[in-house]
Amino acid sequence: MEKLTLHENSASGNCYKIRLTAAHLGLPLNRREYDTMKGETRTPHFLANVNANGRIPVLQIGDRFLPESNAACFFLADGTTLVPADRFERADMLRWMFFEQYSHEPNIATTRFWVAFVGVERLSELQKAQLPGKREAGNAALALMDRHLEKSGFFVGETLTLADIALYAYTHVAPEGGFELAPYPHVAAWLDRVAAMPGHIRIVD
Amino acid sequence: MEKLTLHENSASGNCYKIRLTAAHLGLPLNRREYDTMKGETRTPHFLANVNANGRIPVLQIGDRFLPESNAACFFLADGTTLVPADRFERADMLRWMFFEQYSHEPNIATTRFWVAFVGVERLSELQKAQLPGKREAGNAALALMDRHLEKSGFFVGETLTLADIALYAYTHVAPEGGFELAPYPHVAAWLDRVAAMPGHIRIVD
Repeated sequence: MEKLTLHENSASGNCYKIRLTAAHLGLPLNRREYDTMKGETRTPHFLANVNANGRIPVLQIGDRFLPESNAACFFLADGTTLVPADRFERADMLRWMFFEQYSHEPNIATTRFWVAFVGVERLSELQKAQLPGKREAGNAALALMDRHLEKSGFFVGETLTLADIALYAYTHVAPEGGFELAPYPHVAAWLDRVAAMPGHIRIVD
Repeated sequence: MEKLTLHENSASGNCYKIRLTAAHLGLPLNRREYDTMKGETRTPHFLANVNANGRIPVLQIGDRFLPESNAACFFLADGTTLVPADRFERADMLRWMFFEQYSHEPNIATTRFWVAFVGVERLSELQKAQLPGKREAGNAALALMDRHLEKSGFFVGETLTLADIALYAYTHVAPEGGFELAPYPHVAAWLDRVAAMPGHIRIVD
C-alpha cells in the first residue's frame, strides 16, 4: 500500500478510529497533529491542500486525501475480515457506522468536546441550550446499542467489524462528557470485549 | 433478490434516495407509507419490529430490516456500477455519503422540514435559535459541493455513483427550505445532469 499519513488531533475519537483500524490490520501510519482549538485546520493551506471542509481526520494515501473518519476506516479495511464478506452484513455494518455519525457522534462526542475540552462556562448561550437535548439523544443512542448488544456479542454478528471500531471510539470516553455507562451493562461488557481483542490500542498511547 | 419493501415517508429525501437507487438498478420495491407527523414510526409495533430507532427509511429484505438510508442504498447497489470498483473511489464515495449525513442533511434537510413541513411559527424557541446556524452550515455544504463540481462532472469520477444519489435527494429540494441555488452554478448544472440520467425518477411520482 502507498504511504499512509493521518492528519489528526490525537484526542479526537474520529481520529482514533482510524488508528485503531490500522492497528488491527498491522498497517503503519504516519501521524501529523493539528491543534483544532487554535484553528490549525482552518488555515488557507489546510483548506486548499488537505480538506476543504476544514475538519480532521483526513487520511492521506500517497498524494490523495480522504476525509471522513468512517470512509477512511473503510478504505483501510476493505477486503479484510473487519468488513463482512456477506452482502447484508456489509450493509448492516455501514448502517451502524451511519448511525454513529448521525445519532451518536453529534450528541455524545459533541457533549464530551463541549464539557471536557471547551468548558461549560465558555459555551455560547445557544450551545448551553442544546446540551440537555444532546444528553437525552446521547442516552437514547446508548440505550439502543444496549438493547442490540443484549443479543449479540458485536454489532454485526459475532466478530469485530468496523461498526464496533466506529462506535467504540466515542462510547468508551462518553463518561468524560458526563454520560454514565452503568445503566447500559451490555454496552459496558462490549467495551471490555473490544478492548481485549488482539491488536487493540488505547486512544492515548 | 428477496422481496424488497421500503418502509418510508414519500416526502422524505432519505426515503427517495432508496427509491432512486432501486429505479436506476431496475429493482422492484414495495412501499409502505408512514405519517411521521402523527408518530407512526414511534409506535410500540414499529419500534419492536421495524426500527428500534423510530426512524424511516427502513429497507426490508425478506424478513430482515436495514435502517439508515445510505446503508440501504449500498445494499441495493453493492456490486453494480453505482459503487466504484476501485478501492480508493469506493471509499471516496462513502466519504461523500458520510459528509451528506453529517454536514448536509442535519442542516439542509432539517431546515426544509422545519420551514416547509412543520412551519416556522410552530418551532420551539430552541429550534428557532438554531435556524441561522443551520442555514449558514447548509450554505457551507453547498459551497463545498460547488467547488468540487467545478472540476468534476459527478462526485466520484465521471459517472453516477451513490454519492450523487445521496447528495441529490436533499439538494434538489433545498429551495423548499429557503436555500438559494443560484450562487452555486456547478451544483445547479450537476442537478440537471443527475436528473437527465436514464432511469431517473422524481421524488413525487
